[in-house]
Amino acid sequence: MKVTDLTHSIYSEMPVYPGTEQPIFQKANTLEKDGFQEAKITMYSHTGTHIDAPAHMLKNGLYLDDFEIDQFIGKAMIIDFSKVKTPYMELDQLRPYEEKIKSVDFIILKTGWSKYWGKPQYYENFPSLTEEAAHWLSGFKLKGIGIDAISVDDMKTATFAVHKLFLKKDILIIENLTNLESIDNEDFIISIMPLKTKHADGSPVRAFSIT
Amino acid sequence: MKVTDLTHSIYSEMPVYPGTEQPIFQKANTLEKDGFQEAKITMYSHTGTHIDAPAHMLKNGLYLDDFEIDQFIGKAMIIDFSKVKTPYMELDQLRPYEEKIKSVDFIILKTGWSKYWGKPQYYENFPSLTEEAAHWLSGFKLKGIGIDAISVDDMKTATFAVHKLFLKKDILIIENLTNLESIDNEDFIISIMPLKTKHADGSPVRAFSIT
Repeated sequence: MKVTDLTHSIYSEMPVYPGTEQPIFQKANTLEKDGFQEAKITMYSHTGTHIDAPAHMLKNGLYLDDFEIDQFIGKAMIIDFSKVKTPYMELDQLRPYEEKIKSVDFIILKTGWSKYWGKPQYYENFPSLTEEAAHWLSGFKLKGIGIDAISVDDMKTATFAVHKLFLKKDILIIENLTNLESIDNEDFIISIMPLKTKHADGSPVRAFSIT
Repeated sequence: MKVTDLTHSIYSEMPVYPGTEQPIFQKANTLEKDGFQEAKITMYSHTGTHIDAPAHMLKNGLYLDDFEIDQFIGKAMIIDFSKVKTPYMELDQLRPYEEKIKSVDFIILKTGWSKYWGKPQYYENFPSLTEEAAHWLSGFKLKGIGIDAISVDDMKTATFAVHKLFLKKDILIIENLTNLESIDNEDFIISIMPLKTKHADGSPVRAFSIT
């Protein structure tokens, strides 16, 4: 069993989605005072490598705690767009994977953008799904769709159209994945277990693969 | 693949360790204002079902982010103390499992105390390990030791002697597990993946088993 970490670190100065705040770490208990050390951590529900519940975008959408735990683990495949020189991930590029897609629970879109984590370029010009491609993907019985970039939507639009296409079908969205180049198997298991907070519109996760 | 959730929910009024604080949930972004919903969550690093790093108790102990990711997943066994009518989990009760213990990465001590979650009794009189038993267990090559109670140490002592015996050997401690009665296999995989915060003295986890 080979376990591969697909998660960015969480730290005070980390990149966050525009309009949200960086995490705050405070010393709450100390060895000197209490005999044990604890941190008090303040963070947004979509910090770092995280997942989106339908309730993140949809008025009557499900929260993460409305799903069975099986939703957060399953068979996965990577579709590699890191060498494709187009600003969009389009339907014609996905069609060849149709049969394979039917056999998995999670699609992971590899853009290669994780190498820009912490740089201004991380927020710019990453390949994003066209609405047509997202609509087609949302027709499969998927548990989730992941990406190694800040969003599945183009940052220049404010409609979150691609998010909504997936979330309407209760397909979770995993953003800010990293280290996808370390997965060398075509078939693998991915785990994206969220924290078990109540009414979770999203959660930071420790995403990992098992091959 | 059967996945079983071994995690308590995280909510404002939840039980926490004496001397620490309950989590706080705030609405940070809303559908009305921002087009998406996010929560700002403040919580201690040892909230709910969580794991302890050596740095939680030891001056030069490792943080969770000092371990390889393999440390947080592996073969596990349950030792059932829920029907034993003694206040301690003693060495003589563990010895019969010696050969089996050598074959696993995680020992899970089942006290049955998870049924008292949210009640005053949760903090009282749960079976705790004797120092002799903990010393013996810490001699095995284990990744972690878990319990379905608030601590592996007797709450009436303030020395955390049992914690320290394990943490000195870089054996992680998992506390506040629940739902152990749903694991019906003798052999199973447990995952206790922490958040990937920097200098993590501990982390809430979504613990689960795979059988």
